[in-house]
Amino acid sequence: MKSPRVLLPWEEMPRQWYNVYADVPDAATPVLHPGTMQPVKPDDLAPLFPMAVIEQEVSRQRWIDIPQEVLEVLALWRPTPLHRARNLEKALETPARIYYKNESQSPPGSHKPNTAVAQAYYNKREGVKRIATETGAGQWGSALSFACAQFGLECMVYMVRVSFDQKPYRKSMIQTWGANVVASPSRLTKAGRTALANDPDCPGSLGLAISEAVEDAFGRDDTHYSLGSVLSHVILHQTIVGLETKKQLAAAGERPNVLIGCVGGGSNFGGFAMPFIPDKLDGQDLRIVAVEPESCPSITRGQYVFDYGDTAGMAPIVKMHTLGHTFMPPRIHAGGLRYHGMAPLISALVEKKLIEATARHQKTCFEAAIQFARTEGIIVAPETSHAVRVAIDEALECKKTGEAKVIAFNLSGHGHVDMAAYDAFFSGKLEDYAYPEEAIREAMKSVPEVKL
Amino acid sequence: MKSPRVLLPWEEMPRQWYNVYADVPDAATPVLHPGTMQPVKPDDLAPLFPMAVIEQEVSRQRWIDIPQEVLEVLALWRPTPLHRARNLEKALETPARIYYKNESQSPPGSHKPNTAVAQAYYNKREGVKRIATETGAGQWGSALSFACAQFGLECMVYMVRVSFDQKPYRKSMIQTWGANVVASPSRLTKAGRTALANDPDCPGSLGLAISEAVEDAFGRDDTHYSLGSVLSHVILHQTIVGLETKKQLAAAGERPNVLIGCVGGGSNFGGFAMPFIPDKLDGQDLRIVAVEPESCPSITRGQYVFDYGDTAGMAPIVKMHTLGHTFMPPRIHAGGLRYHGMAPLISALVEKKLIEATARHQKTCFEAAIQFARTEGIIVAPETSHAVRVAIDEALECKKTGEAKVIAFNLSGHGHVDMAAYDAFFSGKLEDYAYPEEAIREAMKSVPEVKL
Repeated sequence: MKSPRVLLPWEEMPRQWYNVYADVPDAATPVLHPGTMQPVKPDDLAPLFPMAVIEQEVSRQRWIDIPQEVLEVLALWRPTPLHRARNLEKALETPARIYYKNESQSPPGSHKPNTAVAQAYYNKREGVKRIATETGAGQWGSALSFACAQFGLECMVYMVRVSFDQKPYRKSMIQTWGANVVASPSRLTKAGRTALANDPDCPGSLGLAISEAVEDAFGRDDTHYSLGSVLSHVILHQTIVGLETKKQLAAAGERPNVLIGCVGGGSNFGGFAMPFIPDKLDGQDLRIVAVEPESCPSITRGQYVFDYGDTAGMAPIVKMHTLGHTFMPPRIHAGGLRYHGMAPLISALVEKKLIEATARHQKTCFEAAIQFARTEGIIVAPETSHAVRVAIDEALECKKTGEAKVIAFNLSGHGHVDMAAYDAFFSGKLEDYAYPEEAIREAMKSVPEVKL
Repeated sequence: MKSPRVLLPWEEMPRQWYNVYADVPDAATPVLHPGTMQPVKPDDLAPLFPMAVIEQEVSRQRWIDIPQEVLEVLALWRPTPLHRARNLEKALETPARIYYKNESQSPPGSHKPNTAVAQAYYNKREGVKRIATETGAGQWGSALSFACAQFGLECMVYMVRVSFDQKPYRKSMIQTWGANVVASPSRLTKAGRTALANDPDCPGSLGLAISEAVEDAFGRDDTHYSLGSVLSHVILHQTIVGLETKKQLAAAGERPNVLIGCVGGGSNFGGFAMPFIPDKLDGQDLRIVAVEPESCPSITRGQYVFDYGDTAGMAPIVKMHTLGHTFMPPRIHAGGLRYHGMAPLISALVEKKLIEATARHQKTCFEAAIQFARTEGIIVAPETSHAVRVAIDEALECKKTGEAKVIAFNLSGHGHVDMAAYDAFFSGKLEDYAYPEEAIREAMKSVPEVKL
């Protein structure tokens, strides 16, 4: 017998991140200031981000060294295993070979700390004492609080009130790692106080929480802001996932034919897929598939235009697939995928046909997750279930055609903190929702006019 | 830099369990039938357990082969890493070197599936179609349902009602793996119906849930019963933890001076510690420390006598450290440690001074767990926090004495499904409780008189 896991020895853990802009330079699009609607300069971002991160955001250098201090923290759980899903293959009776990269074994249970650790480190190095951020369901807030604890930084998390009240587990994780977490809207910022004055019972939103965190960072010299997805430096930090996967597939004697990840802002998918773009450019028989929820279908049903990064229209404007920044997705359980836009890098690569996108309804995703749990054992996060669904769909297609494709997907996180979502599925409370064209057209009206 | 993790290659995963009775044969004590009060025969247990497991319970063979089918399932997450806790050492300013074995990376998040997989396999091999079990907080029920899914067995879990209602996450995990889970007392058994007739709002207890599961198994030819702790075959299956640890410590060039694990029924501690008993017998400078909660101090404050395994007095009678089977510990958050007795094997080794025991209050354990989370990153289960507390205490003692001891503990599970306990700690709702002598004396009156 062979082990179903491909473990990478520590010595082979990547020491550099891969920057895809070196190979696809025209995938870069300008980032616009929300006030002037003109391209931001590095100095505009300096109150928010450390200079190292701002440089990475616009770098064209192919390989960027991972600092020793970052490697030392990542080594607490990296390299992560690549699994061959033999039990699932057998259950599906597919000739395909299915692999999954297991990012669920980090301390917070997802891929998020890969960038949280790097961002915390660069802030620490540049003398920042405190980082403010927002979190929706809590995955990002918990990852950043874990990372800040590693570097002795204070961390302030504005958590959307409805999650703060309904998802107390992630809040407690954030506190365990020593961060401050408040329900947003809070009384700590002008944005929060204004929202509360309008509605004392305001449930909050991700857009509003971003506004609070940004205001907090702008208002204090010792504080920066940190974002867990969408931006290119975040995807850069996540490429360690794809770089490890590439080595592990090679060690297993495999070349992938289909790579799959779920997308909300695009960070886990981007980090998993980017290192394979050169192979695609070299003509390898490879499809790279981003899976989004049917209830928030930014790539498959949105437009590729300039739009605000946040709901409130205070964040920078980027070119991306968007449903309009006022688009309000329903309360699906994959909270991490409820984003009106997409990472500009992912969007650009979709336009170049290097990446394709597909959307799935949540019930069929939970069905896939349950089949996966009963075969491979791991209970995945609701977000990850979208990748599992499409991996199974691809494998079933292979069963029809008889092709022995190599399918690999990113298992971006476990679902142990999201069991309420599974419970909703089992008790029949889960609804599928697809937006009527008109609702999307309406939200698209919020897209700003941009003249460069 | 060196990796903080010692990874064992798949080829070096143990292929045999270690049976300590071969080296300490007089640690074996008889198991008595609760009806006759006389030693049980294998046939008495046949309606409940597969014959292979019954044979393991009384075996004196030193090494017992792990079946290939069991190895294949364990390989989904094993071998597990051994970590050097360098960040914690630094925070404590201790000359000690601290290691922890990470059993939190199994699909259910704890060590429990090590025996669940073996038990499910032996049942499957002997033609059993269905396994009934009880679960308190849900860790064991989820591990067994995971294992049953791997072998295509039906699984029926009687879950103590108060946990069923208040800890829905574990219930949903059990369902995700395809098991049936009902609140106990249920209407499915006579024991359950009787309890409900007496009190329709009966919150249930572990003792009652055991009674329901045993009645279920006795009542159906296709069904067996399974227990997740206390018995010697359970500890045998868990020795893979200690065997891996031994290899990993050797690979790191270390010999342990202190081994630490938390104890409820004794399975994670036993599996971790047993493989080191021969070293102790050989005169190695080694202390093996079991940590129990001060609120349920069976070894440190109980007596070593024959007592019933369950609260209701229906389970076999074993010789162990017990507080009396009617002892009712308070609702501490380490639900897995709320057991009136102790594994007979552990108790016997305590009597032989091969193992020592100590007790800790829960608040000091949560403090240790939080320090551990902020240094090593991992949020441990409330049960595990007891081992963390004593590992830190030992390391602080080394700081005083200047000794560079090697301290290793078993990280038996993560706390992601137990964050409500951390929340209770942060909000100041956690109380410490130590029983007055009189309360323990009172419960000890329930111990039966045994004449052999």
